[in-house]
Amino acid sequence: MERHLDNEINHVKESLLKMAGLAEAAIDKAIRALKERDTQLAREVIDQDQAINELEIEIENGCFTLLARQQPVAADLRFIMALVKINNDLERVADHAVNIAQKAVSLAESVPLKPLIDIPHMADIAQEMLRNSLDSFIRHDAALARQVCERDDVVDALDEQVQRELITYMMQDHKNISRALDLTLISKNLERIADLSTNISEEVIFFVEARTIKHKHLDVHIRP
Amino acid sequence: MERHLDNEINHVKESLLKMAGLAEAAIDKAIRALKERDTQLAREVIDQDQAINELEIEIENGCFTLLARQQPVAADLRFIMALVKINNDLERVADHAVNIAQKAVSLAESVPLKPLIDIPHMADIAQEMLRNSLDSFIRHDAALARQVCERDDVVDALDEQVQRELITYMMQDHKNISRALDLTLISKNLERIADLSTNISEEVIFFVEARTIKHKHLDVHIRP
Repeated sequence: MERHLDNEINHVKESLLKMAGLAEAAIDKAIRALKERDTQLAREVIDQDQAINELEIEIENGCFTLLARQQPVAADLRFIMALVKINNDLERVADHAVNIAQKAVSLAESVPLKPLIDIPHMADIAQEMLRNSLDSFIRHDAALARQVCERDDVVDALDEQVQRELITYMMQDHKNISRALDLTLISKNLERIADLSTNISEEVIFFVEARTIKHKHLDVHIRP
Repeated sequence: MERHLDNEINHVKESLLKMAGLAEAAIDKAIRALKERDTQLAREVIDQDQAINELEIEIENGCFTLLARQQPVAADLRFIMALVKINNDLERVADHAVNIAQKAVSLAESVPLKPLIDIPHMADIAQEMLRNSLDSFIRHDAALARQVCERDDVVDALDEQVQRELITYMMQDHKNISRALDLTLISKNLERIADLSTNISEEVIFFVEARTIKHKHLDVHIRP
């Protein structure tokens, strides 16, 4: 690998890590805003999204410039393609954090429906999955990436459990419906963040092992 | 542009059109299954998803091989990057069709909650947005792509309207809750399909005009 190419790749990689940090902070703040009924914190998440969108475009332009100027091949090309896709996934993670923050604002307007236990628990797992997917990317660690993929089912099961519980709240009293629906959609957003972390991990495995486990039951080797 | 590169790009482009056709058919079938309470049709959508996932991987491998072997620059590179991202968006569209089909199966088990009017209407708009986004890609038509982006707000407004109406059904009778919740989530899936069609259109504008309107209020020109 050329030294110049190394430097340029590292520059884009650093921007991606910054992007990951912003996306992680957005989820963290959105969930804290929900738990602590802190609408100001929720609005911070909503306001910060613009900076994340700008960074996404900057990173994408950086990758494009790299491909156009350096014409990387093999492992470098694969790494840059992974950067492009992970960047896109992180922007979507941040969008889900914004959705959660918006629901947190609306929920803070009424009395709490119930003590929040499962949703913060789901958020912890989803955040850990996101962090580990990024760590696996930085360390080129396919084993860690596989662990992330395996946890996706846990979050799916929690989402179903949360949804079932919230339906019983809706049935008990129609005054619960609007708040229970907001919490259901928050749970769905966390489930999507876990999905996106799984996507990122699949990208990592793809570029580390040059094959894809993107869709279960498939194990297609990349064409030489 | 080299003739050989042209041929290879056309080959991947044809696969992408096949992918788009499958994704469009998946939405169409899922909504028909919902309207006609046809669980067999819904199961077809669910079963077909595997083929769509395989095609996504085939297209991604095709793009990777193109980048590695041909080292395209400028417009060709931008076109291939658009292919990679649109391919990813189409796979997500198909996932949302599967979600709708799954809800259609569960809704067919009980009596209809209400005549479906707004949801099929949303589906029509979302499908037209998807079709137009792909047409804009094929014809390099940034004006058509812009029209798609503009319609996203219409679908968002319909989603909110559907959600408000379904809350009133939930409040009227707790026996409605489970079905109304399924319909709410179907509406959200259609809203996401419209979002993904908007993403595709933004990619088209990006590669046609070499600048991005990806995030509103931004108009960042790509670095030379």
